[in-house]
Amino acid sequence: MITSERRVNEKTVDVAIIGSGTAGLNVMGQVRRARKSFVLINDGETGTTCARVGCMPSKAMIQVAEDFHRRAHLGRYGIAGHEDLTLDLPEALEHVQNLRDIFVDRVLEHSTDKLGEEFIEGYARFIEPTLLEVEGQRIRAGRVVIATGSRPLVPEPWRAFGDRIITTDELFEYENLPAAIGVIGLGTIGLELGQSLHRLGISVTGFDQIDTIGGIQDPEVARTAIDILGREFPLHLGRPADIEAAGEQLKVTAGEHSVRVDKVLCSIGRVPNVENLGLENLGVALDEHGMPPFNLNTMQIADLPVYLAGDVTGERMILHEAGDDGRIAGYNAAHDETTAFRRKTPIMINFCDPNICAVGRRWDEIDQGSTAVGEIRFGPVGRALIMGKNKGVLRVYGDRQSGRLLGAEMIGPACEHLAHLLCWCIEQRLGVADLLRMPFYHPVIEEALQAALYDLYRKVETKNEGGLVELERLPV
Amino acid sequence: MITSERRVNEKTVDVAIIGSGTAGLNVMGQVRRARKSFVLINDGETGTTCARVGCMPSKAMIQVAEDFHRRAHLGRYGIAGHEDLTLDLPEALEHVQNLRDIFVDRVLEHSTDKLGEEFIEGYARFIEPTLLEVEGQRIRAGRVVIATGSRPLVPEPWRAFGDRIITTDELFEYENLPAAIGVIGLGTIGLELGQSLHRLGISVTGFDQIDTIGGIQDPEVARTAIDILGREFPLHLGRPADIEAAGEQLKVTAGEHSVRVDKVLCSIGRVPNVENLGLENLGVALDEHGMPPFNLNTMQIADLPVYLAGDVTGERMILHEAGDDGRIAGYNAAHDETTAFRRKTPIMINFCDPNICAVGRRWDEIDQGSTAVGEIRFGPVGRALIMGKNKGVLRVYGDRQSGRLLGAEMIGPACEHLAHLLCWCIEQRLGVADLLRMPFYHPVIEEALQAALYDLYRKVETKNEGGLVELERLPV
Repeated sequence: MITSERRVNEKTVDVAIIGSGTAGLNVMGQVRRARKSFVLINDGETGTTCARVGCMPSKAMIQVAEDFHRRAHLGRYGIAGHEDLTLDLPEALEHVQNLRDIFVDRVLEHSTDKLGEEFIEGYARFIEPTLLEVEGQRIRAGRVVIATGSRPLVPEPWRAFGDRIITTDELFEYENLPAAIGVIGLGTIGLELGQSLHRLGISVTGFDQIDTIGGIQDPEVARTAIDILGREFPLHLGRPADIEAAGEQLKVTAGEHSVRVDKVLCSIGRVPNVENLGLENLGVALDEHGMPPFNLNTMQIADLPVYLAGDVTGERMILHEAGDDGRIAGYNAAHDETTAFRRKTPIMINFCDPNICAVGRRWDEIDQGSTAVGEIRFGPVGRALIMGKNKGVLRVYGDRQSGRLLGAEMIGPACEHLAHLLCWCIEQRLGVADLLRMPFYHPVIEEALQAALYDLYRKVETKNEGGLVELERLPV
Repeated sequence: MITSERRVNEKTVDVAIIGSGTAGLNVMGQVRRARKSFVLINDGETGTTCARVGCMPSKAMIQVAEDFHRRAHLGRYGIAGHEDLTLDLPEALEHVQNLRDIFVDRVLEHSTDKLGEEFIEGYARFIEPTLLEVEGQRIRAGRVVIATGSRPLVPEPWRAFGDRIITTDELFEYENLPAAIGVIGLGTIGLELGQSLHRLGISVTGFDQIDTIGGIQDPEVARTAIDILGREFPLHLGRPADIEAAGEQLKVTAGEHSVRVDKVLCSIGRVPNVENLGLENLGVALDEHGMPPFNLNTMQIADLPVYLAGDVTGERMILHEAGDDGRIAGYNAAHDETTAFRRKTPIMINFCDPNICAVGRRWDEIDQGSTAVGEIRFGPVGRALIMGKNKGVLRVYGDRQSGRLLGAEMIGPACEHLAHLLCWCIEQRLGVADLLRMPFYHPVIEEALQAALYDLYRKVETKNEGGLVELERLPV
């Protein structure tokens, strides 16, 4: 019998949560609400990927870089002296680190710091689906949630270059940065940081083996984005990058392009932290990445009392989705019946300047035959012109027959806000005519969206009756 | 018989449109679509209030002022030399004027320039409801739309001070501006321009006889706004301002406060242009302002074949509403049956920094007893902190029983975008729980709205079933 086999230092809880990042903390919130007993197990630094090495420090760096970059506009306005503005890089980095520390402290303050025995420091390993071992201690849990997060992927051979290869884990730790940095991998992280480092005065060269940047799938948006960003710093796309030592430096080569840099920021992706969890003891088949099958609506692994949440899933690696993962996994881990929840309309924001965003269905997911595309270029958009940020393109996808909104991809000013607006409308299953009835103030960037919607409306089959698409008739 | 009385130079058309601003041009659009004959009558400068003296030049001035003002932040980031930035005011004003000219040209290009005989220059006067006289010519129209716009209100006694009293009609014409300007009237126009002029280096003193600024009604938002803006330049509220000559200058006095200025920007309001239209010949009773009664859903005056559109109504004096006015009036003027249209959820954006906005029902329109208020201060909001713009407050009103969103007032960063988001949700009659199920990316200013919504949700009676307000259960 299991009971008689229990060792002295075996602890029994309703729920064991492995990982105290955003997902794990949200799991804990649900478990506490349901008044279940739990342990929160974490190895290494606490404070969430977001606050420590992700969203927050990157946005702080982007803000400084953008403010410094903005000096180029000042001359057009009659503001003199902008040529003499200089940036002290260590001071800028310190500012970023100070802000980062504020955000990390804030996370800790509300989470693990106040836990007593419920917090266990150490690396957890499955013995059975509901039996864990942490630093010699055994924990028997009714349910287990795995929220161990992810880490930057660095190809094994590149590790030989030591600290000349850095990732986001190290970038925000430096007191100064060298003159030349290669950025390999131009997804959201590489693009945001590459552009910022360039604007902070570092000579940045970007590489990606695919032909697009920032996760864009729409070919027209990709072309525009590569043109806009490529004017700021060189982007070498479509060829894998190779690194070799060159004295104290590194030589990065992709196709015929070669550049010497002091460091390489490796931003080719993130991998789930699953290796040493003993997932093989769950008794389910693991895929080639060592991942068990799970359901995105329940977060349950197969039919086990074990759940995944957050980056460790390898899907939707962004904070608000990690939060939802945690809520769903936590809710189900704390309740006897398994509940399936609808996942939110996807939204992706790349905070480079101009913003690159995507919402709803992506270009590769839409059926070209049955989809109409509304397009607007930001060039003539009044407010964008006033802001001196009138570069970009916005493409909105709608069902050609019904006019229902499906998705959008875009690069342009203030697109982080347009993305929310569109995403919320897609969540509500609205059609293009519904949106054209909404108020668009003047002069705002939202008017670019309005223009794209008019373009889309012209191309869909279902037209508004009565002649005024912008206004709803009152019942007679 | 009327026909036999027609004079030789009497012209007959289906629709006569008086005024070629935003409203009038939208009327023309509808009339053309219905293939009706028309004349567009305009006296004086064409090009819309918005493009010539309103939204567009003011936003251009705000942008320059904001960029120059931003220099104060740069020191915190390790950017040196910001203390030496200087502004050449004539050059900045020229930039504003150049942009203004682009926008005015663009309006003209798409409107009156291409009209031939359909455009009549001159001042129209009603002889009868469907008979107009313009510079000696008579026009017999099936329907008439009055879209004559508005002009800045200047009290008669102040006219004696000549060009020391200016309005938005003159402000954007100057090649330079004097050292000290008093701004009387701190509604949207006075506040936007007062702050901009201050940031451009002019010594600005603001006055308003009421106790709030920027059209705010919510006392908490008003208090915060007065505190934020009042730290930039002096605001004297609650006492009417009096002007007297002081040598070449003017002395403005309100209560115990007195200041000498070179010019006064008079921004106490705008009045409809109706005086010389001969509205007394419409045969309907006019109110004390000389305005006839009209219906905001049809834009029809009483039961006459005469319509109002745009600022001349004295209501909703903003571009997108003027556009709707014009569409409704034009549609009805071009169709035999009168159609009533639902008007949009109100949205007000004051583009001062931080933005002041209001959507839906205003504080004075909500029933305090049945309304719950969700509130967030921008102080700790992550992204706002990163932007160095974490001042402000957002207050969202919801029905205490049902949780349905009613309105919001706010001052804070990027609130122009939050206002759109909220306004579109109110248009769709959503409740606070519906909004909490929407995706909020991270780190974005929209998260401030999320926090205000959580606060509101705690205070309303209708809670989401199932425990997870952020997620919708899938049907079993």
